[in-house]
Amino acid sequence: MTRTLHPSDGVRSTPIEAIVLTGAEIDQTAGLLSLRERQPFALYGTETTLAYVAENPMFDALAPATVPRQTVALDEPFELAGGIEARLFAVPGKAPLYAEGDAPLIGSETAANVGVELVREGARFVFVPGCADIGPALRERLAKADAFMFDGTLYSDDELIASGTGEKTGLRMGHVSVAGPEGSLARLAGLENRRIYIHINNTNPILISGSAEHRQVVEAGWEIAFDGMEVAL
Amino acid sequence: MTRTLHPSDGVRSTPIEAIVLTGAEIDQTAGLLSLRERQPFALYGTETTLAYVAENPMFDALAPATVPRQTVALDEPFELAGGIEARLFAVPGKAPLYAEGDAPLIGSETAANVGVELVREGARFVFVPGCADIGPALRERLAKADAFMFDGTLYSDDELIASGTGEKTGLRMGHVSVAGPEGSLARLAGLENRRIYIHINNTNPILISGSAEHRQVVEAGWEIAFDGMEVAL
Repeated sequence: MTRTLHPSDGVRSTPIEAIVLTGAEIDQTAGLLSLRERQPFALYGTETTLAYVAENPMFDALAPATVPRQTVALDEPFELAGGIEARLFAVPGKAPLYAEGDAPLIGSETAANVGVELVREGARFVFVPGCADIGPALRERLAKADAFMFDGTLYSDDELIASGTGEKTGLRMGHVSVAGPEGSLARLAGLENRRIYIHINNTNPILISGSAEHRQVVEAGWEIAFDGMEVAL
Repeated sequence: MTRTLHPSDGVRSTPIEAIVLTGAEIDQTAGLLSLRERQPFALYGTETTLAYVAENPMFDALAPATVPRQTVALDEPFELAGGIEARLFAVPGKAPLYAEGDAPLIGSETAANVGVELVREGARFVFVPGCADIGPALRERLAKADAFMFDGTLYSDDELIASGTGEKTGLRMGHVSVAGPEGSLARLAGLENRRIYIHINNTNPILISGSAEHRQVVEAGWEIAFDGMEVAL
């Protein structure tokens, strides 16, 4: 699956040819505002996600002629640069915080929160940064990948409340925990492929080398993502 | 004017008590999205600027109970934490890029683009990050300050075009150049207070130590801002 891109010889250029949004939460979209305004790339997302983006005129700085927005249907393959076949699939979650409204739907499987599956030359990678529940179909999809990255926001559901950093549970925020009978460690036990926790909140003790939680996760065969991590398949 | 703030002993806290917007351009507002969502501060801006912000629902992640938005009238003093008296004043400029529309008004003096004047215990500081033209009233205001920071985006008006990095002139973007008969060096010649260039584009040769342009600016008594710069009055 190796495809290495380098900045070209242009005065200003980046190796970014496409960005695939898995949702329109701030931490999924605000980075686009640092990529404006003259660097061409394609922006992919579900109709729901791109509608949230379109509701924020600030993103119009990414001019359509330079950054075309491509609506992608769930479960339909689409082609990225370099012969990568991509596919978006719905994952239990929620709408972005700023679009929750008064009675937010939490944990439902909609096009507002998706995972991405990438396939190239037989290698398969799955990326699920936000997930509120792990059912059999998702487990099966993850099991078939050579490697996957998965929502590691919180270790325990009441972590923010216990640490005094917030008032919401993990599930209220659309994130299944690492620990517990319905957590990702338990629900994804028995897999043998590369499993990598991402989107890890700074309250999560798996970030602390030497902590019991860190040891537990590593002994279960998981990796903990870090800035600049590269995954070769 | 010294007022040093430190993070408190809270689990999560910052010394930021207020943010004053001088416009709603992306580089003036997108940073707010990194400050969400539980850290209280007050957000000040003109009615025009806060209206641009309000048109982007993403900023609703800054909940009004935690981050009250305070509309400020032009030329009316308002009080910031620490006994600082602040005042916004209109500066020639333009609306934010994403709100320009088809026939943008460039160089007009509106509440969409302002400077800030801060006064405390007799010390006076002026901050003008974007300015399309320097008239007598603005020069007089800058001259009365103990120090000011001023728009140093481009050295010459056609810099982006000449370097192949863009198609717009400085004036089209709402920025007066450093050089030239109507540039800031000429229009603000003769001032003796601390003059600091900010908002310097990475095409601007004054950033290159040893360049003729850098030398020219420094010999004229200007300072060139850098990350982490502190100004004590």
